[in-house]
Amino acid sequence: MSTDANDGRASRSRGRPRLEIDRDAVANAVAELFAEGGIDAVSIAETAEKLAVSRATLYRAVPTKEELLGILFERSTRELTERTDAVLAASSEPSDQLVELIKLQAEAAIRMRSYMPVFFGGGGLPSDVFMRWRNWSRQFEKRWSVVVMACMDAGVLDKTDPVVATRLILGMIIWVSRWYRPSEKITGEEIADSAITLLRLRLPEVEA
Amino acid sequence: MSTDANDGRASRSRGRPRLEIDRDAVANAVAELFAEGGIDAVSIAETAEKLAVSRATLYRAVPTKEELLGILFERSTRELTERTDAVLAASSEPSDQLVELIKLQAEAAIRMRSYMPVFFGGGGLPSDVFMRWRNWSRQFEKRWSVVVMACMDAGVLDKTDPVVATRLILGMIIWVSRWYRPSEKITGEEIADSAITLLRLRLPEVEA
Repeated sequence: MSTDANDGRASRSRGRPRLEIDRDAVANAVAELFAEGGIDAVSIAETAEKLAVSRATLYRAVPTKEELLGILFERSTRELTERTDAVLAASSEPSDQLVELIKLQAEAAIRMRSYMPVFFGGGGLPSDVFMRWRNWSRQFEKRWSVVVMACMDAGVLDKTDPVVATRLILGMIIWVSRWYRPSEKITGEEIADSAITLLRLRLPEVEA
Repeated sequence: MSTDANDGRASRSRGRPRLEIDRDAVANAVAELFAEGGIDAVSIAETAEKLAVSRATLYRAVPTKEELLGILFERSTRELTERTDAVLAASSEPSDQLVELIKLQAEAAIRMRSYMPVFFGGGGLPSDVFMRWRNWSRQFEKRWSVVVMACMDAGVLDKTDPVVATRLILGMIIWVSRWYRPSEKITGEEIADSAITLLRLRLPEVEA
């Protein structure tokens, strides 16, 4: 995305060079605002301040709060999807896959804790972001449920409704975002190991 | 709690009869507003409209949004605590207790789905309600963790950090609030049974 560099503070050269907005920097700024005060703290004015650009500059590149949220949402979901696909590609053993998915998701729940429950829950999102969330969420859940079903077929998990089971396991990990406190000195790895123990999944180390 | 009945629309008798505000009706109205539009939809004006009383009348009994939220919060937490204690009193077998706690919590997650994640997560709550939530939440978690620890001691659950395990199991059920849709025709009982299956807890029926 590019935008005019003329932000009203000073007239630039006649050539009007176009400024690239660094979407990664925008995503970081929005994530920081979420951490500071939740979705209500996210605004174009505050994001511009974090990025040290004028409101007008940011406004021209990202005209609405929806788009601001969308930039963070897209980066987070793309990253989660890519890393999930990498886990699925790394092993064909369902129990290994589920163990690694749980570890990945626990680490993400901690790192993205200020906004993961908002993005996964859908509540409070602008309708545009909500619609994208719903589509992504279904696809993401589907990736997990294939693994959960394979674990049931292999006897690694007892049989029950695979969609409900997937949502229960995912929810168990997503909710970590809400209770995790860095001061308690528990790592994502330890939390993931507890979840794996509760579900009685074999740890890869144990199999070796 | 009682309040003056003179709400400014008409002067009443010199005796100024005091009006009892029905806290249960207030809690119901606030719960409806949550269901309609989340915490942002909760206001004294909207609550008064639902209760068919004037804003001034409600305002005199419940002067702030914090207190409105507090009324629903207190009813919900008192009810959950009482029902949890009843489950704990009904059996001394840890696995039966955990099975019944999961059933109770799943039913509550569905019934209270518009506000349970807000109350359990603490996020977005006014500071007064948040402080009460934190105290209640710790006590509630403690009740659960005693059962989880007893299940580990009895070999019903594999051993891991009991506080983390408690939060993972509770989170699994609390998150039901976020994905449950009445249109999908899954009952709280079925969801609880799936959770019990995933955790491989014995069902009371199986033991009989």
